[in-house]
Amino acid sequence: MPAKRQDGPFDWIDAQREQRRRAGLVRELRPRPATSPLLDLAGNDYLGLARHPGVTAAAGAAAREWGAGSTGSRLVTGSTELHARLEAELAAFCGFEAALVLSSGYAANLAAVTALTVRGGLLVSDESNHASLIDGCRLSRAETAVVPHADPEAVRKALDGHDGPALAVTDSVFSVDGDAAPLRELADACRAGGAGLLVDDAHGLGVLGDGGRGAPYAAGLAGAGDVVATVTLSKSLGSQGGAVLGPARVVEHLVNTARTLIFDTGLNPAAAGAALAALRLLRGEPGRAERVREVAGALHAGLTAAGLAAVRPDAAVVSVRAPSPEAAVRWAADCRAAGLAVGCFRPPSVPDGVSRLRLTARADLTDEQVARAVETVAGTAPRPV
Amino acid sequence: MPAKRQDGPFDWIDAQREQRRRAGLVRELRPRPATSPLLDLAGNDYLGLARHPGVTAAAGAAAREWGAGSTGSRLVTGSTELHARLEAELAAFCGFEAALVLSSGYAANLAAVTALTVRGGLLVSDESNHASLIDGCRLSRAETAVVPHADPEAVRKALDGHDGPALAVTDSVFSVDGDAAPLRELADACRAGGAGLLVDDAHGLGVLGDGGRGAPYAAGLAGAGDVVATVTLSKSLGSQGGAVLGPARVVEHLVNTARTLIFDTGLNPAAAGAALAALRLLRGEPGRAERVREVAGALHAGLTAAGLAAVRPDAAVVSVRAPSPEAAVRWAADCRAAGLAVGCFRPPSVPDGVSRLRLTARADLTDEQVARAVETVAGTAPRPV
Ligand SMILES: Cc1ncc(COP(=O)(O)O)c(C=O)c1O
Ligand SMILES: Cc1ncc(COP(=O)(O)O)c(C=O)c1O
Repeated sequence: MPAKRQDGPFDWIDAQREQRRRAGLVRELRPRPATSPLLDLAGNDYLGLARHPGVTAAAGAAAREWGAGSTGSRLVTGSTELHARLEAELAAFCGFEAALVLSSGYAANLAAVTALTVRGGLLVSDESNHASLIDGCRLSRAETAVVPHADPEAVRKALDGHDGPALAVTDSVFSVDGDAAPLRELADACRAGGAGLLVDDAHGLGVLGDGGRGAPYAAGLAGAGDVVATVTLSKSLGSQGGAVLGPARVVEHLVNTARTLIFDTGLNPAAAGAALAALRLLRGEPGRAERVREVAGALHAGLTAAGLAAVRPDAAVVSVRAPSPEAAVRWAADCRAAGLAVGCFRPPSVPDGVSRLRLTARADLTDEQVARAVETVAGTAPRPV
Repeated sequence: MPAKRQDGPFDWIDAQREQRRRAGLVRELRPRPATSPLLDLAGNDYLGLARHPGVTAAAGAAAREWGAGSTGSRLVTGSTELHARLEAELAAFCGFEAALVLSSGYAANLAAVTALTVRGGLLVSDESNHASLIDGCRLSRAETAVVPHADPEAVRKALDGHDGPALAVTDSVFSVDGDAAPLRELADACRAGGAGLLVDDAHGLGVLGDGGRGAPYAAGLAGAGDVVATVTLSKSLGSQGGAVLGPARVVEHLVNTARTLIFDTGLNPAAAGAALAALRLLRGEPGRAERVREVAGALHAGLTAAGLAAVRPDAAVVSVRAPSPEAAVRWAADCRAAGLAVGCFRPPSVPDGVSRLRLTARADLTDEQVARAVETVAGTAPRPV
């Protein structure tokens, strides 16, 4: 039955669209084909596992065995023994007592931030934290203090004099510039102030720490009673989903209180099965973590030698500054025309308003591919840079 | 490296745990095996498609062809031609101009509510709305007016005198009691007040409307310029994921502004492929939607005849009131012992504080199974009811 046309209520979005167009900030979806001749330095498949035959076969086998969907909330029908297995192996690998799998890393961050804070409590958040942590802060009933980037002293000051539950939250590796948080110093500041520490290790798992056990493990914080981590299954593990890692009592608390767990359908079995297969591959081939760091280092060295403003990577993300959003878009398009896919970050996705190319290292890139990538980025760079 | 034990910062959660225990409100994960002898009336697999061989095979094929994960945000590498196909077919089936797929129904609701409201605008929300819509309201910059359940007059009054962008949001079918919203009257109220209408059709898709095209289609609202719907791929379509359906300009606006789209990894290909296969099955077998409504009606009739306080279902969810949380838990456990899995909803998951059993109809249940389910629920009911 054709409906009456009534466009009025959404007319205001046209003005915003026009503003975006004028500012060179229009985004478009560009669906990709199944196979592409492009060299991919845009995705977050750091270990090259998303297309590993063992991982994709595990996805198919899990769907066949457990169904295409989990059919309900984790609290009703959405917990399978496959989810439990993934949780046990993830927790053990990363050095935590327990783990809880959610449908995405975004959902895991919303769950952890909201469930581990209380009305009247304090939440201390790095100004460069990921959007999902920021949304978690906005959903939390606690008061949020935003502190300068990677600044343990600022955390210490924010906690000073606060009484009652407090939590500091930080990315382990910041997604835009690829720099690492000073986790040990942050933990010291939290301990001095009686606060818990929540670390979003989305970009650390599979890359940092012994064999890719992640940033909290590398910092000697994994398994501590006052530290909780979140990870995503969508980057190094090549799948989808997220998890909260921490003391068993924290996980039990989340099962009872986290809205994005209770009111969300459990992760689909194919994604859980793929992530578990990827985790087992990583455990068996710890060199993958080392290799991705080596590739990131080589990318940075090459770009810097070519005179570009690349940030020294602490993990797999290599960020290169561009003079303007338009220049960044053109640069990325020129790379693409030359056979290289790179990420392009513009406002509002960059905390400091500076547009960038974002290159991601992958463990399965050859030295020759790395050299070609550097050559392409340097050869298409806007002058002057 | 073993970390120092510092349990203090999370000690407060033990007191909450003790409170839950005393109130009979402890929740636990109960991982299920791949095959179970239980008759399942607890999951949301309304059309019985989660384990359909065509659907699970499509999940595996998609993982093989496109990878186990989408590898990035929909704006970077996370949009495949498979996502685009799913979006086109979903929009066409439900009668909308365009669709945008996100990683969950939860994420779709957060995206739609936040992106379609502005600071200084008004958001009118039914008091019984799903948690994901409520969280969307809390993340929105607009002022939120919570209105009585299913009350178009209240929406009209809330909009009265407001100038500037306004949006009313409602579930199409409420997840706890299974009752339907008066969509046509709500749309009239919105039109009188110049507001857009956002309908969460999580429980309507596949069940309501011609061949399962959903509640907005059934109400003659699909494709209207002032109506936006969200759906989940995790219930009738037996998979995972969510989508926003609406005018193309609304979808374009979400691509540019919705944080749970921009900052979240795209839906994994296996889930997208399974949902597309389920959608095609439903299109080819429209009788599935009719059958699930028939089963729901039979469940309600049987339970009512047995003297139980069952709510007349408008879709697939049949809700039965229990005298207390403890009684509800015992009732569900007795059903389980007798071979029947049912949902058990307790505070805080019930808006009115009344605990319930929640039974879901499935299109693939036989009349004999329905009779057995009714007999089991009635035979285990707490006395007096
Ligand atoms: C730092 C960080 N945290 C969380 C997320 C969200 O994880 P997911 O995409 O699995 O939802 C991302 C990226 O997507 C991220 O970069
Ligand atoms: C009404 C309603 N909206 C949204 C959702 C969230 O969808 P999903 O589980 O796909 O995230 C659910 C249930 O999970 C629901 O019942």
